[in-house]
Amino acid sequence: MATLTLLPSSSSSSPSSSSSSSSSTLKSSFVLRRHALALRPSFLPSPHRRPVTPIRALSSPSPSPATALTQDDLKKLAAVKAVDYVTSGMVLGLGTGSTAAFVVSEIGALLASGKLTDIVGVPTSKRTFEQAKSLGIPLSTLDDHPRLNLAIDGADEVDPDLNLVKGRGGALLREKMVEAASDKFVVVVDETKLVTGLGGSGLAMPVEVVQFCWKYNQTRLQELFKEEGCEAKLRLDADGKPYITDNSNYIVDLYFKTPIKDAPAAGKEISTLEGVVEHGLFLDMTSAVIIAGKDGVSIKSK
Amino acid sequence: MATLTLLPSSSSSSPSSSSSSSSSTLKSSFVLRRHALALRPSFLPSPHRRPVTPIRALSSPSPSPATALTQDDLKKLAAVKAVDYVTSGMVLGLGTGSTAAFVVSEIGALLASGKLTDIVGVPTSKRTFEQAKSLGIPLSTLDDHPRLNLAIDGADEVDPDLNLVKGRGGALLREKMVEAASDKFVVVVDETKLVTGLGGSGLAMPVEVVQFCWKYNQTRLQELFKEEGCEAKLRLDADGKPYITDNSNYIVDLYFKTPIKDAPAAGKEISTLEGVVEHGLFLDMTSAVIIAGKDGVSIKSK
Repeated sequence: MATLTLLPSSSSSSPSSSSSSSSSTLKSSFVLRRHALALRPSFLPSPHRRPVTPIRALSSPSPSPATALTQDDLKKLAAVKAVDYVTSGMVLGLGTGSTAAFVVSEIGALLASGKLTDIVGVPTSKRTFEQAKSLGIPLSTLDDHPRLNLAIDGADEVDPDLNLVKGRGGALLREKMVEAASDKFVVVVDETKLVTGLGGSGLAMPVEVVQFCWKYNQTRLQELFKEEGCEAKLRLDADGKPYITDNSNYIVDLYFKTPIKDAPAAGKEISTLEGVVEHGLFLDMTSAVIIAGKDGVSIKSK
Repeated sequence: MATLTLLPSSSSSSPSSSSSSSSSTLKSSFVLRRHALALRPSFLPSPHRRPVTPIRALSSPSPSPATALTQDDLKKLAAVKAVDYVTSGMVLGLGTGSTAAFVVSEIGALLASGKLTDIVGVPTSKRTFEQAKSLGIPLSTLDDHPRLNLAIDGADEVDPDLNLVKGRGGALLREKMVEAASDKFVVVVDETKLVTGLGGSGLAMPVEVVQFCWKYNQTRLQELFKEEGCEAKLRLDADGKPYITDNSNYIVDLYFKTPIKDAPAAGKEISTLEGVVEHGLFLDMTSAVIIAGKDGVSIKSK
């Protein structure tokens, strides 16, 4: 596991030039992954060097309250850093959620300014499709672009092995389809998303289920995680009606008292339940995580 | 594997009384399965002995053309035999398709005549729900009855190990949910459905996929079965539009030139594809298969 800390106020904002040793570790990780996934295009550092830090992290250990960064500021900071990995000509998976929206916005701005060209985006939700379309990002689907160079998305939880919980935004299935089809998957979070074990935030781990007999599957899911003190709840929308995904399914949110003991085994067990369409455990998929904290941006890669 | 052949013209139509030795083998199989699935109710032979053979199989090896049975006659013959396994008080999974429709019809008739009482049916499709409702069969769902005593359904293919291909009728997901929740699963087919290996009929093995990027999954499914010379096609309805399942998904039908080499491995691999909701391989689920042939009805159990 390599960790590279980048202070966004540094003049060198590209991951490839910030620290030669850390960068080398990071690139090695990508090379390893590329070798594991034969015939995929290489992961290149960004050529569009530019001042990317309209929001600057604090370099002082004792910030004054007037300059404290909000959670949105941190998300934007990490999002801007993630876009450094994008190069012209890429087919890009566009994530869903508040952090991913900053990524899409940044890509739109770079296309508009001509700093990026020849980008094709594959959105992971109807919301992202609409946002990207409004920004003039050329869009496609997995049907026409079954392999992507890079996907960038947020996450709800990140564990020390870079496994994730995703899907609180409701787009877990499309996100997993697109991100599993990407040569590289860069995750962007603020530091509040780091957990010691998945499920450890006490917030929802979503499972997309068919509407047919959802209570039956809710009960089965809760039973599956008895040891973790799991409570399974149907997700409701603002009107108190069942939340319906882009694929016309329901979401059962799992809330754990203690982290999931064995996430890979849990993922497999959830998938064997008939009527489960997808779950929010994204395991062994992440290439790198960009983490924005009050002291700057750090990058973790496997 | 036990095989019990019953001539439907026999005066004894119940599987438990037709042949003491074969019946004993059959019942042993069920007892074994019951022990494997603890706390499930026992599988009892039917108390509603009655003449169940309005259609009689031919006892002569050289039938005259005038008395030849149609495929529908054979399906009905097997369906009537399957209903012998139903006893009053059972929670019953009701299958979908032309053979299952004969089963539902027979159960409705026995309820109407008072020979069966206190039955609750759990239908596996909207079609079956409508048929059962019209016959006055009390209905429920897995939400309220998460464990069933018995499910009866047809199948598209049956291999020598009693593994099945199902879902050409389009109800594979609900069928699998209900039948996996049943203590016993009795399959009813005519002899044309017997194959030496799954996929061997050359007809469709259906896979239910989300509508999102179905072409991407169609391609991936076809790739998965390169060795078997698989052709993957989107199922269309009568108007040439994509067929939509009860769960708002599409179906990709797989056609194999040679049978699937390793069905359990294939089932697992299909399930790992994101966007696949369910597949038509029903493996290690069947308690007994009732087969109607021109020479009578036979029962195979594991």
